[in-house]
Amino acid sequence: MTSFQAILEGDRLALSRLLTQVENDAPESRAALIELFPHTGRAHLIGVTGAPGTGKSSLVNQLALHYRKAKDKRVAVIAVDPTSPFSGGAVLGDRVRMRDLAGDPGVFIRSMATRGSLGGLAQSTANVARVFDAAGFDIVVIETVGAGQSEVDIARLAHTTLVVEAPGLGDDIQAIKAGILEIADILVVNKADRPGVEATEKALKSMLELAHPARRVFRHHGIEMETPLYQVESRHPLWIPPIQRTISIDGGGVPELVEAIERHASYLAQSGDRALRERARLEAELEGLIREELVERFRREISAARYEKVLEQILQRELSPGEAVKLLLNGRFK
Amino acid sequence: MTSFQAILEGDRLALSRLLTQVENDAPESRAALIELFPHTGRAHLIGVTGAPGTGKSSLVNQLALHYRKAKDKRVAVIAVDPTSPFSGGAVLGDRVRMRDLAGDPGVFIRSMATRGSLGGLAQSTANVARVFDAAGFDIVVIETVGAGQSEVDIARLAHTTLVVEAPGLGDDIQAIKAGILEIADILVVNKADRPGVEATEKALKSMLELAHPARRVFRHHGIEMETPLYQVESRHPLWIPPIQRTISIDGGGVPELVEAIERHASYLAQSGDRALRERARLEAELEGLIREELVERFRREISAARYEKVLEQILQRELSPGEAVKLLLNGRFK
Repeated sequence: MTSFQAILEGDRLALSRLLTQVENDAPESRAALIELFPHTGRAHLIGVTGAPGTGKSSLVNQLALHYRKAKDKRVAVIAVDPTSPFSGGAVLGDRVRMRDLAGDPGVFIRSMATRGSLGGLAQSTANVARVFDAAGFDIVVIETVGAGQSEVDIARLAHTTLVVEAPGLGDDIQAIKAGILEIADILVVNKADRPGVEATEKALKSMLELAHPARRVFRHHGIEMETPLYQVESRHPLWIPPIQRTISIDGGGVPELVEAIERHASYLAQSGDRALRERARLEAELEGLIREELVERFRREISAARYEKVLEQILQRELSPGEAVKLLLNGRFK
Repeated sequence: MTSFQAILEGDRLALSRLLTQVENDAPESRAALIELFPHTGRAHLIGVTGAPGTGKSSLVNQLALHYRKAKDKRVAVIAVDPTSPFSGGAVLGDRVRMRDLAGDPGVFIRSMATRGSLGGLAQSTANVARVFDAAGFDIVVIETVGAGQSEVDIARLAHTTLVVEAPGLGDDIQAIKAGILEIADILVVNKADRPGVEATEKALKSMLELAHPARRVFRHHGIEMETPLYQVESRHPLWIPPIQRTISIDGGGVPELVEAIERHASYLAQSGDRALRERARLEAELEGLIREELVERFRREISAARYEKVLEQILQRELSPGEAVKLLLNGRFK
C-alpha cells in the first residue's frame, strides 16, 4: 500500500523493489498487482525484436533519448533475454546505455531473464510492464534478444512491434523468418549507413508483398496492377508495415521512426485495433492464470501416492501418458 | 492397428503418414501412440543444439553416416526449427543430406516446425521420437536450430545432449550461454580445422570449470590442486562433459564423438541417470497433458456468457486478472 504510493510519487527504490518482487512472483507482489491494475492501460508498449547483430540495443537507447528530449515522455525499457540467467539492472547492455541516460529520472531500464518456464517469463514481463504503466511511464519498450518463438510471444505484449533488420547479416530469409515478419508493425533497417541496405530493404519489401495481400499485384484485363488499398481498407482496416531506415550510432532516422510509431498508435486507436489487441492480451493472460490455478488445485487434490503409482505404471510401459491422464482425472472434476 | 504393424514391418509410407498425424495431433494418432507406447524406451535419443553457423546440420549428417556404416544402427533424424512455419521432409537441409543418405532404408529424416504453441512443439517432438523408437530406430537425433529457451526445452528430451560450438563466431560468451552449457553432456567444437579452435576450446573449458564444481581448483595446504574426481563420484555420480573436436565437412573426429556418446550412454545406464532422466521426462509429459486436459474440461464447464462478462470487467479495469481467476474457479473445482 505505502510502497505503491511511493511508486506513484516517483520513488525509484520502491519501484525497483516492487519490480524484483513481481519478477520473482513473490506473494506481496500479487496484492500490489491487484492494487495497481486500475491505474494501467495508459502507456504505449513498444516491442523491439530481431536477429542478434542488428543493433537493437543501441536503437532502443536512441529511441529512449528521443522520447525524452524531443517528446518529453517518461520511458521504461525492459530488456528481456530468454537465454540468460541474469536478471536485474547490471548487465553490460544496461551499463552502455547508462552513459547517455544516467541520472535522468524519466528513464528506467530493467533487465529480465528466464526464471523457470518461458510462459513464466512472458507473464512476468507483462507484469513488469504493468508496474511501469501504473507508475506513469508513457512509453514502455520491451526489447527481446534473439528472434525465436519466445521473443515472438513476448513481442505480442506490445501495442507496436518493431522488427529490426540490418544489412550484411548474411541470408536475409534466414535472419528474418516468416513468423517474425507477421508480428511486425514497423520494419526497421538499422545500420543503414552500411553497404547492402538497398538489398535488405528489397528483400523485406518482397516478403511484405507475400505477407500482405493488399500489396499483392493482380491481373485485371490482362494488365498487371496492385490491389487498390482503399478497397481493402473499406472492408477491414489494414496497416501495412512501413520500412524505416535508422543509424543507431548517431540517431539518424530515429525521429522518423518515432513518427511512424505515433502514426501506428493513431491507427490503433482509430481502427479499434488497440481495443482488440488489449482484449486478446488480457484474455491470453487470464487463460494462463486459469491454467496455473487449475494445476495448483489439482496438485492439492491428488494424493502423492496415487500419482506416483500411475507414474510408475507409465515407466513400466503398462500405461501410456494419454491413458494415465484419463485415469487420474476421471471423476475428479465434473 | 494395421498401419502400426506396417510400420513395424518397415513400411516407410505408413511411417511417414503416422508422423504427419502425430505432428498434427490428429485423433487417429492418439490411439496409435497408445498402441505403440509399450514398444518404446529402447532408442538412444541424441539432442544436438548450438548457435546458428556452427555447422550442426552437417555434423548430424556425419553422425548418421557413421552410425550407419561403422555401427550398423538404424538412425532417425528430427530437425526441429521453432522459428520456421515449414514442416515435412522437403526443406533445404534435408535435401543436402539426402545426397549421402538417399535410398538407405536405415535412415529417416523428418523436419518439424512450430504448429501453434511452443509447448506443443516439444510435445509433438517427443511423440515423433516415440514413433521412431517404436519403429525400431536405434538412434534418434533431435537437432534444433538456434539456441533459445525453446531449443533447451526440446534438447531436454534427449538422453545425450550435444552442444555444438565453432571457432570464429565472435563473442564466445554470447554464442554459448550459461543455460545452454548446463544441458550439455558433450561439447563439440565443430569446424575444428579453422583458426581460433584453441581459443574456443579454452573458453569452453573455463566455462565448464565454473559450471562443474568437480573440476574446480581448490587450495589444500597452500597447494593449488583440482578436486579429485572420485571424491565427488563417491557422493553422487557426476559426468563431466568432454570436449570433442570435429570437422563435419570430412567427418574428422566423428568416430571419437560417437565413442564419447557411447561412453555417456554407459554412464547413464550404470549411474542410474538414464532411469532418472526417463522418469523426469515422462513426468513432465504427464504434467503437460494433465494441464491441457484440465483446461479443456474447464472450457466445457464454464458458460461463455459468464467468461465474457468477467473478461469485460477486466477490460474495464474493474477486476484484475488475478481476482478474475479466483472468481471463475470458486466452487467450480473442489
